[in-house]
Amino acid sequence: MRYELYYWPHIPGRGEFVRLALEDAGVDYVDVARGPEKEGLGIPALRRFLEDASVALPPYAPPFLKAGEQIIGQTANILQFLGAHHGLAPNDEAGRLWTHQLQLTVADFVDEAHDTHHPLGSHLYYEDQKPEALRRARSFIELRMPKYLGYFERVLERNPARSGWLVGDALTYADTSLFQVVEGLRYAFPRAMQQAEPKHARVVKLHDAVAARPRLAAYLASPRRIPFNEKGLYRRYPELDA
Amino acid sequence: MRYELYYWPHIPGRGEFVRLALEDAGVDYVDVARGPEKEGLGIPALRRFLEDASVALPPYAPPFLKAGEQIIGQTANILQFLGAHHGLAPNDEAGRLWTHQLQLTVADFVDEAHDTHHPLGSHLYYEDQKPEALRRARSFIELRMPKYLGYFERVLERNPARSGWLVGDALTYADTSLFQVVEGLRYAFPRAMQQAEPKHARVVKLHDAVAARPRLAAYLASPRRIPFNEKGLYRRYPELDA
Repeated sequence: MRYELYYWPHIPGRGEFVRLALEDAGVDYVDVARGPEKEGLGIPALRRFLEDASVALPPYAPPFLKAGEQIIGQTANILQFLGAHHGLAPNDEAGRLWTHQLQLTVADFVDEAHDTHHPLGSHLYYEDQKPEALRRARSFIELRMPKYLGYFERVLERNPARSGWLVGDALTYADTSLFQVVEGLRYAFPRAMQQAEPKHARVVKLHDAVAARPRLAAYLASPRRIPFNEKGLYRRYPELDA
Repeated sequence: MRYELYYWPHIPGRGEFVRLALEDAGVDYVDVARGPEKEGLGIPALRRFLEDASVALPPYAPPFLKAGEQIIGQTANILQFLGAHHGLAPNDEAGRLWTHQLQLTVADFVDEAHDTHHPLGSHLYYEDQKPEALRRARSFIELRMPKYLGYFERVLERNPARSGWLVGDALTYADTSLFQVVEGLRYAFPRAMQQAEPKHARVVKLHDAVAARPRLAAYLASPRRIPFNEKGLYRRYPELDA
């Protein structure tokens, strides 16, 4: 079965967390909204789906994944599904829950990084909330980023398996997600990250280990990997990185 | 086995979503931080836990639940655990994922309600971000609240079981959570909710059905139910409800 991933085509965004899991697992999927409209793909296919009143279990927003007849929404929930089916999470209940707990903490971290450029909401342009963004970004860099990075550093340090992965002795979707957070923070806050990285050596090492996974290394070098840009979650506004 | 719930004692907050599930399931639990310090409970017990370097799988923040030796953090993750063990979610994988997807959408809705009074971050007082809160609250009431409520109304309408519950033909933790959202919105935005409720009759009916569950009715009338207040997620600042 070929999965169908539905997500906005021009940004890495939340869809990228799903892509990384699919790519590391070597799973066959079509990135629907990035396909040609003349083949029934593209953004119209995504919109059609969201507006289709016959969908009994409608997702609130992209990303969502079609697996046969099943539609799975919410990034962390999709990852949980992929984790269980493609070896990206432990099989036992405690291990599954711990992996998911870490993913939900990554999701909170991602939300806060997003809010640095949109503290007043996504309906306004960044330019219409710039003074507020400056204040929010300052506290993100000074308080929140170190708190989250310190937390994941601690999780890596305490992992009884001492594997360098977050959970047990093998890579999980929480690792690919934390990799993406580091990538995003390096893009959005290069100055702040330069200062933060030496204090979080385990997180940096995990980032490098994820990037070196053969399938992911190939993916990251391919045109399938969408570069960060100023429409997405992580944006480079140098004034916010002060 | 008696569960231990760890959460801040003076607010309903995110802990309340867990309490509602525990109470509806009739599960035995101790609300650790609300217990007497002389019995080793209270806030010191919560803080000790968070600072204990011997915890191998540390939670990032409350709420977390101790189930024997297992520690489960992140509200939605705790609910997933309780759903599986206490009949608050379907047994099949598709039903479990759908319930969790709805819960994660509730969590997004809760985050946005919180951000109406703290758009610049939780480290500042409301009084230090009031103009920004006014702007954020306006867009929450005009755009976000109707979008989320409309979504859940649609889910109820489309549920193939036509049961009045969000998932299939029985109550799940997504229902108790949506109940709590309605309660919180009524507290924080009574004017806006008075206008919104007639357009979301199915959501209101679900709220009433949850409140009428015998165990929950007893709980809601008990001192175990913490009233909303201006320290929590949902705060009544009349100027934000305009």
